[in-house]
Amino acid sequence: MKISHIEHIGIAVESLETAIPFYEKALGLKCYAVEEVAEQKVKTAFFKVGETKIELLESTDPEGPIGKFIEKKGPGMHHLAFAVDQVDASLEDAEANGVRLIDKKHRNGAEGLKIGFLHPKSTFGVLTELCGHE
Amino acid sequence: MKISHIEHIGIAVESLETAIPFYEKALGLKCYAVEEVAEQKVKTAFFKVGETKIELLESTDPEGPIGKFIEKKGPGMHHLAFAVDQVDASLEDAEANGVRLIDKKHRNGAEGLKIGFLHPKSTFGVLTELCGHE
Repeated sequence: MKISHIEHIGIAVESLETAIPFYEKALGLKCYAVEEVAEQKVKTAFFKVGETKIELLESTDPEGPIGKFIEKKGPGMHHLAFAVDQVDASLEDAEANGVRLIDKKHRNGAEGLKIGFLHPKSTFGVLTELCGHE
Repeated sequence: MKISHIEHIGIAVESLETAIPFYEKALGLKCYAVEEVAEQKVKTAFFKVGETKIELLESTDPEGPIGKFIEKKGPGMHHLAFAVDQVDASLEDAEANGVRLIDKKHRNGAEGLKIGFLHPKSTFGVLTELCGHE
């Protein structure tokens, strides 16, 4: 697998309405998109920081993945996404190196990207996403 | 404050000895430095990913900050560090915007950087570091 950069960092927040002003006013970053992803039961807000994005995630359902994460661990960093050249081949590559996968094949993510998750049990507690255009 | 990019992501691990091979072999990243920071009661390992670094943190003392973090939340992402042009001025700027600070003035961090932390109570659960050369 060939990782070029960190594509984004997903951060679980209790409320976009209160978190966005912190990132905009206190940190001086600009929110360029807010999007609801019904399938993941989240509302998201995106900020660009150099070559990386920050993706704030507000749960729309306590039973969704972000709702459960916040209940268990509190708000904070939720996942780390690496940009790779080929997502399916990279997932296969990870599995061949003994990594447990959440996704054996890519699914379609935000912004037209192909995405796949490695299991945090295999990644030392960090929910790790691979994403890319191919 | 002017953030240019994400300088590094700090990840708490139980053991560098087992985590480094995952980052090197499964993700294909290269560990370029291992360093003990006695003051912080950690051993660190650094990887470069595009313009960002991943800093793995192993506690050398259960009473240190990483030891306590792992006891409370388990291993995983610990802090997020933004590169800023002027660290002290950026800390002042954050405080003027109502952010609670851990460090009112910078201290000296790894790799010759000046660093200062914002308090996670003010940053929606993400322990946030500002760092830079000035």
